[in-house]
Amino acid sequence: MAYEAPLPMMRLTLRQAARAARLDGAAAYAETLEELAPAVLEGASRIAREVLSPLNRVGDASGCRLEHGTVRTPPGFRAAYQRFCADGWPSLAAPSAFGGQGLPVLIAAAATEMWGGANLAFAMCPEAASGAIEALAVHASAQLKREYLPQLVSGAWTASMCLTEPQAGSDLSTIRTTAEPDGAEFRLTGRKIFISFGDHDLAENIVHLVLARAPQAPAGAKGLSLFLVPKRLPGAHADNDIRAVGLEHKMGIRASPTCAMTLGEHGGARGYLVGALHGGLECMFTMMNHMRLGVALHSTGLAERARQLALAYAQERRQGRNAAGAQRPIIEHTDVRRMLLSMSVLTQAARALAYGAAATLDAAHGAHLGQAERARAMRRLALLTPLAKAWCSDTAGEVASLGVQVHGGMGYMQDSEISQIFRDSRIGSIYEGTNYIQAQDLIGRRVLRDEGAALEELLEDIAAAARALPAEPVLAGLGERLLAECAALHTMTRRLIAAHSTEPEWSLAVAYPFLQWLGVTAGAWQWALTALEPGPDGAALRALAGFYAAHILPRARACAALVESGAAPILTADPLQPS
Amino acid sequence: MAYEAPLPMMRLTLRQAARAARLDGAAAYAETLEELAPAVLEGASRIAREVLSPLNRVGDASGCRLEHGTVRTPPGFRAAYQRFCADGWPSLAAPSAFGGQGLPVLIAAAATEMWGGANLAFAMCPEAASGAIEALAVHASAQLKREYLPQLVSGAWTASMCLTEPQAGSDLSTIRTTAEPDGAEFRLTGRKIFISFGDHDLAENIVHLVLARAPQAPAGAKGLSLFLVPKRLPGAHADNDIRAVGLEHKMGIRASPTCAMTLGEHGGARGYLVGALHGGLECMFTMMNHMRLGVALHSTGLAERARQLALAYAQERRQGRNAAGAQRPIIEHTDVRRMLLSMSVLTQAARALAYGAAATLDAAHGAHLGQAERARAMRRLALLTPLAKAWCSDTAGEVASLGVQVHGGMGYMQDSEISQIFRDSRIGSIYEGTNYIQAQDLIGRRVLRDEGAALEELLEDIAAAARALPAEPVLAGLGERLLAECAALHTMTRRLIAAHSTEPEWSLAVAYPFLQWLGVTAGAWQWALTALEPGPDGAALRALAGFYAAHILPRARACAALVESGAAPILTADPLQPS
Repeated sequence: MAYEAPLPMMRLTLRQAARAARLDGAAAYAETLEELAPAVLEGASRIAREVLSPLNRVGDASGCRLEHGTVRTPPGFRAAYQRFCADGWPSLAAPSAFGGQGLPVLIAAAATEMWGGANLAFAMCPEAASGAIEALAVHASAQLKREYLPQLVSGAWTASMCLTEPQAGSDLSTIRTTAEPDGAEFRLTGRKIFISFGDHDLAENIVHLVLARAPQAPAGAKGLSLFLVPKRLPGAHADNDIRAVGLEHKMGIRASPTCAMTLGEHGGARGYLVGALHGGLECMFTMMNHMRLGVALHSTGLAERARQLALAYAQERRQGRNAAGAQRPIIEHTDVRRMLLSMSVLTQAARALAYGAAATLDAAHGAHLGQAERARAMRRLALLTPLAKAWCSDTAGEVASLGVQVHGGMGYMQDSEISQIFRDSRIGSIYEGTNYIQAQDLIGRRVLRDEGAALEELLEDIAAAARALPAEPVLAGLGERLLAECAALHTMTRRLIAAHSTEPEWSLAVAYPFLQWLGVTAGAWQWALTALEPGPDGAALRALAGFYAAHILPRARACAALVESGAAPILTADPLQPS
Repeated sequence: MAYEAPLPMMRLTLRQAARAARLDGAAAYAETLEELAPAVLEGASRIAREVLSPLNRVGDASGCRLEHGTVRTPPGFRAAYQRFCADGWPSLAAPSAFGGQGLPVLIAAAATEMWGGANLAFAMCPEAASGAIEALAVHASAQLKREYLPQLVSGAWTASMCLTEPQAGSDLSTIRTTAEPDGAEFRLTGRKIFISFGDHDLAENIVHLVLARAPQAPAGAKGLSLFLVPKRLPGAHADNDIRAVGLEHKMGIRASPTCAMTLGEHGGARGYLVGALHGGLECMFTMMNHMRLGVALHSTGLAERARQLALAYAQERRQGRNAAGAQRPIIEHTDVRRMLLSMSVLTQAARALAYGAAATLDAAHGAHLGQAERARAMRRLALLTPLAKAWCSDTAGEVASLGVQVHGGMGYMQDSEISQIFRDSRIGSIYEGTNYIQAQDLIGRRVLRDEGAALEELLEDIAAAARALPAEPVLAGLGERLLAECAALHTMTRRLIAAHSTEPEWSLAVAYPFLQWLGVTAGAWQWALTALEPGPDGAALRALAGFYAAHILPRARACAALVESGAAPILTADPLQPS
């Protein structure tokens, strides 16, 4: 059963996200959305269903191979990638100056969700290119842009992000790869690991964006610079001094080659500085934030796919009998229904949160809004990016696990796609910055640093949606519960800010439950917005919103208690005791 | 790094479990525990570390193969099994009349945890035999016992439980395998799937316990009978008409052969009735309840193993710097510490709950207590078995996932043992009755049917432990929180019972969150008991109990809200809408 994009829900979510980002009043934006989104989504849905989805199981079973220094992707991937590029999918949101279609990030977001849902391992390749396009468009010199962007935008070349080294994971300050000046260029030497699509046979060239240390650099992460290191040197038609020397065997995303790379075995890989010398971290974060939104979208796609597989299985599989003695599809069993509903409302909450972040990116960077509104969107985006990355990826893991449970023993079999989704979905909470890194970013840089200003703006928006909800029993008290969480989050944030100078360990210790609290509340906010959407499915949507209120939102109370408990339980108890 | 049994915590938990099952006053039992347990645990720990653990990765990588109708286990498994039998491990708790050592189930429980933690796939083989021993000892004829029990007890023969058929999973009423009388024997014909260790090369014979339908049987599950169907007919030295025709490829427990079996391709497999004709379900449940306790213990072992791997990794892996600029092991990062502590307290709660069920089994079946106390233990056991099966297996999944997270990207690599534990641990919530089946059993048969009597006895015990706790800040309010949960569970149970005749869908709809509520509360109860244990580690244990109170027990509030919300949100919302 092939992946099928849930187009009506996606279209509804696009509208909802644009409205939440205050873009519904921007005529040009609203028009683009209304006129182009339906056709783009239709087209994306077709290639997701017909080309990417059928390769998902093949890719998992085959994995990649490293042969004579070249990575071979699974059968069919090369042809699929060619079709993907021929149809113009890599260029959706890319700048038109370099051959892109210049569509809103929000429209591209729906397509990105589809790629992740149909075939995550494949999807990682265009996602990295799209992040590199953004980083280069913002930070690279005019010459580098001219030379590299058109090829990346067409998909003729792909990209990789080379950060991690054996000793440098979450902590990039210990990166040892060096870059020596050589005229206008640099020569890079070092070793990188965990490089997704660091090598492959899908495209003719790979543009590596490499964090390295140039001479006289300040110590730590602030001394890093970003370099563009092509696999093949465009003018010289020669191979550069960078190659894949190993391929990881992973629990999931097995069709995505995770490479160990060496640079400079023969004198140094030629690299070109992107952005300012020693200013690599900022450039890298442009790409990284793009990738984090990508994780949120891909995770939503995985959750959606798990939901589709579980729904199909639950309608087909029969166990137990009804009152008349006839065998019942298991979807009629209350607990299976409960699990399917949990999957549905979590998936939609993740989707709406991720699309909301994408629309906010459009609001922050487009010319659709005035300066104050753009600045507001920028603050909101800084908050939503780590929140969406972490909450959507954790949610995908939960939804996939529920999907396995709906399948019973069948879900544990290697040849059931749900078992692949379960394994594939586990990476989202780890890569592109572990979810704790997101939580630290959220509470440290996005809440404490601006003394809660951006968070309070968000809580006001949430409270406004909550107040607009009707008092219908089917909503299971969503409005009141949501208002209560807003108030509790507000109070707690003020307490954390006040305590920050005297008890800095508190916010650090509860960063993760704080993110979970905000995530489950933001999910309820999205359901409040969905319940307010007019349309023929209104009654069904309000019932789902009520299910979220009754079955998911109560987790907020547990998160609040954890945050409340402070740092003491963590700092007092010792994980090594009793020995 | 080999599995290492946490002997001090295990010994403490044995004492705690015996006391909770009111067996500490039974002199003979207490003496056996004190005199024999340390040596048995030492011995078991040695073979777990030296023999079983080193084969865990090998088994996962190799899996099993079906060659010419015979299953080949991974390299080393046969020799390990021979050593396992030579050392007498299959016979620990088996009846002495048939060559067993007749030890308390409680002592055997600690060993079972070790087998699961060191090598779950291997552990499933002796566990099935041990369940078959119990079922045959209780239900089989004297002749069958004479012929089969000594061989099972020595480990020379193993056993399998043949229930599932393609159309009959959770619902056994649709079993189609037939048993035709043939003199004193039966001839069985049918097809079974998902049969763990249905075939293998570890032992010379396999004793299959097969659910089948005899002529003139009443319809449904109540018409099933249980048959002993040996792979080889002992007297005739000939193969019986049952064989493995397929082997599943699974996400985990890959060294455990999951077989598709056919019976009766050549006229019918010879089978011998166990228990009463059409009384198979009762016999099967003797074995099934044994296996459910086994899942709880194995799950605890997996959680413990995940904890060991994560602790070791977190002490070795360095990221980030301390105030003095030195690189820090990640265990010093607050969030890693938080995850490790969560793993520790969840693992210990699971252990104590599972051991508690094992001790209750001793109390129910031994001659250590008077009749009223035995009857009380029987009621308690009926409550604890589904609770421990479901809660411990869900908990193992959570702890394993936390273990992956502590490992970061390394945890996602196929060659890290934690990634295997993550996959292996996912089966526990599915097999031996899915966790919803457990939840239904708990609320339907164990709570509603006796109008809450057994549950109220349990809640009284929990409240007594809560009241005995000192009012130390380090306990983070464990006592009061636990008393509050007891009161809330009591009130809710009364409401569910009162509503059962008018709103039967309520308890059905919330069976699973109800089980989770009781599980997290029972875990806190166990930590209260642990905090009350005297000993040199008292302060460390009380700090861990406080961590459980602050970080785990608050989930009870979310579960309570779900139960409170009733059936309406589940029955009103439609998982198929909007389409």
